[in-house]
Amino acid sequence: MNSEQKNIGSIYCNSKAWGAFNEKLASINLSKVFVIIDENTKQFCLPILRSKISQDFTLEILEIEAGEIYKNIDTCVLLWNQLSEKGADRNSIILNLGGGVITDLGGFVASTFKRGIKFINIPTTLLAMVDASVGGKNGVDLGVLKNQVGVINNPEMVLVDTVFLKTLLKEQITSGYAEMLKHGLIHSSSYWNEIKLFDVNNIKSTEDLVWDSIKIKNEIVLKDPFEKSIRKTLNFGHTLGHAIESYCLDNKDKKDLLHGEAVAIGMILATYISFKLVSLSEKELSDISETLTRFYTKVDFSSEEISSIIELLKYDKKNSNGKVLFVLLSSIGNCEINQEVPNDLIFEAFEFYKKI
Amino acid sequence: MNSEQKNIGSIYCNSKAWGAFNEKLASINLSKVFVIIDENTKQFCLPILRSKISQDFTLEILEIEAGEIYKNIDTCVLLWNQLSEKGADRNSIILNLGGGVITDLGGFVASTFKRGIKFINIPTTLLAMVDASVGGKNGVDLGVLKNQVGVINNPEMVLVDTVFLKTLLKEQITSGYAEMLKHGLIHSSSYWNEIKLFDVNNIKSTEDLVWDSIKIKNEIVLKDPFEKSIRKTLNFGHTLGHAIESYCLDNKDKKDLLHGEAVAIGMILATYISFKLVSLSEKELSDISETLTRFYTKVDFSSEEISSIIELLKYDKKNSNGKVLFVLLSSIGNCEINQEVPNDLIFEAFEFYKKI
Repeated sequence: MNSEQKNIGSIYCNSKAWGAFNEKLASINLSKVFVIIDENTKQFCLPILRSKISQDFTLEILEIEAGEIYKNIDTCVLLWNQLSEKGADRNSIILNLGGGVITDLGGFVASTFKRGIKFINIPTTLLAMVDASVGGKNGVDLGVLKNQVGVINNPEMVLVDTVFLKTLLKEQITSGYAEMLKHGLIHSSSYWNEIKLFDVNNIKSTEDLVWDSIKIKNEIVLKDPFEKSIRKTLNFGHTLGHAIESYCLDNKDKKDLLHGEAVAIGMILATYISFKLVSLSEKELSDISETLTRFYTKVDFSSEEISSIIELLKYDKKNSNGKVLFVLLSSIGNCEINQEVPNDLIFEAFEFYKKI
Repeated sequence: MNSEQKNIGSIYCNSKAWGAFNEKLASINLSKVFVIIDENTKQFCLPILRSKISQDFTLEILEIEAGEIYKNIDTCVLLWNQLSEKGADRNSIILNLGGGVITDLGGFVASTFKRGIKFINIPTTLLAMVDASVGGKNGVDLGVLKNQVGVINNPEMVLVDTVFLKTLLKEQITSGYAEMLKHGLIHSSSYWNEIKLFDVNNIKSTEDLVWDSIKIKNEIVLKDPFEKSIRKTLNFGHTLGHAIESYCLDNKDKKDLLHGEAVAIGMILATYISFKLVSLSEKELSDISETLTRFYTKVDFSSEEISSIIELLKYDKKNSNGKVLFVLLSSIGNCEINQEVPNDLIFEAFEFYKKI
């Protein structure tokens, strides 16, 4: 990333963002600064944060367990209680230092503590940078149901510094990359072709693509903050992706999938459905499914498992009047929202996926 | 109340409000209608609601335990799960049929379920009519800390029908009346003098005062929805009132106080402090403390209890940078917000209260 300051609204990207961050902290009459971390970000990211904060703040550290299974109300209750005990008030701020679990959960905790205190997202995974921390959505899971409880509320600032990505395992980079690929598919064939060149082994060389991806997401979100229309396109691949992710999380026999791994499968399935139901061409179907299978290991699902996954769709947040609604692609860069899809076509899509 | 339709914004009052309510339901493309009730409102209020709904909706009933101790996250988790199981989606609506516990908690559950679904408040207690359901505040308690978790989010509509008050015990009416008296104190000496004539034994004769009280609260809330300035005046009597309420709730030796009973004590204490610290006259002090003690039974507090109550003040949501801030009266109808009060003056106020 070049040294020029990159920002749109309150989203700041690259190393110069820390200047804006320190200015932001200085501009608020802050009582206390809380930082939500997990064991991973404590080790790798908290020292970086400490080295970048210029002001003489005592950071109050709130540590939670790492992992999606802790993105629940019990963790929120622990944090709300700790905030109370440590004297957080309406002039306190929470810095969410971590991946999507921390930015989603920390944003929800801040938005609801004493009816809302300020927070800043400092995403440390690629997934959180290009997806979770932009757009104001926050929340927690309810049992296996993802993000069932939450609100839409924007942070004071989102600080994206790709330095944090150095600490990630390759599979986590690949997981985040799935959302970048999605941004390509829903945005334009030119960005799709560009994003295919992203090098998960050498982010530095192509890191401008991270910023492009944030810009695409942000542009969509600003047009439709409450997801009445175009924001729904960001859900491409997520209807089945979320159900697959929930299913694997809840079944001990099944290896847990990272969010992007599940979404990649969901995107292949939605692409096949798009080919059958709307105008997506066979050439685009091949292009998309081949690109995705190049990066994401295939997972086998039995017929019973597919039925269980379809059963989970009824809890999808985007459902309306009992109908499961998909986002489909009429071509790369062009979406059709609110599409009903018959169950047998979903089974057929899994058949297609199995044979790729 | 006369038959003329009374409404400001989305708050509708009197029997004609049901027409607006039915129009509202008809105007939304609703999937399902949920009603949150407790054992009390199930018996007395649900039949009234059923008789008033003109459309052919199947009401999905969600019953919770009655009482402030159930205004907590565990009850929210039960409701979020029931909503999921019963197929609530973003086109569902929740009708909160009950007192402040139900409107506060139900509003929070609706505001956070799938990042927010619609809700309508139908307050059935005087307290909920004149206070809880107006202004968009919702939330739950965290242990003994009142309303520590919540958001500000407005219902689609607030439907006030004093017919529900017929089902209330006199002590509940008196509890709600405390907030009306507060509205008088912070608004004007003319409304204060008028409100003193409210007859808790015969609401019908003076029920226009209920509507006046709602209007005063609403006017303040609209000027300052996020409580930066004038909305803080609604907190008159609540800083110590909340602490007293929490203390009694948490101590088995102490009889639980209704919210208004605790706030009445808090108002007497704040009035004495106002007399000592700002310009409130001795005549006004007598007027206010005599009026309040006429309606509210006195409670004895030992020195240890007073210390514990003061200790609880540090959790007050309105605190800023570790300072406990009071709303005081410079005269009836004129408030001074953000006032620091030394602990020994709080003790002195309790002494004054003891001797009335």
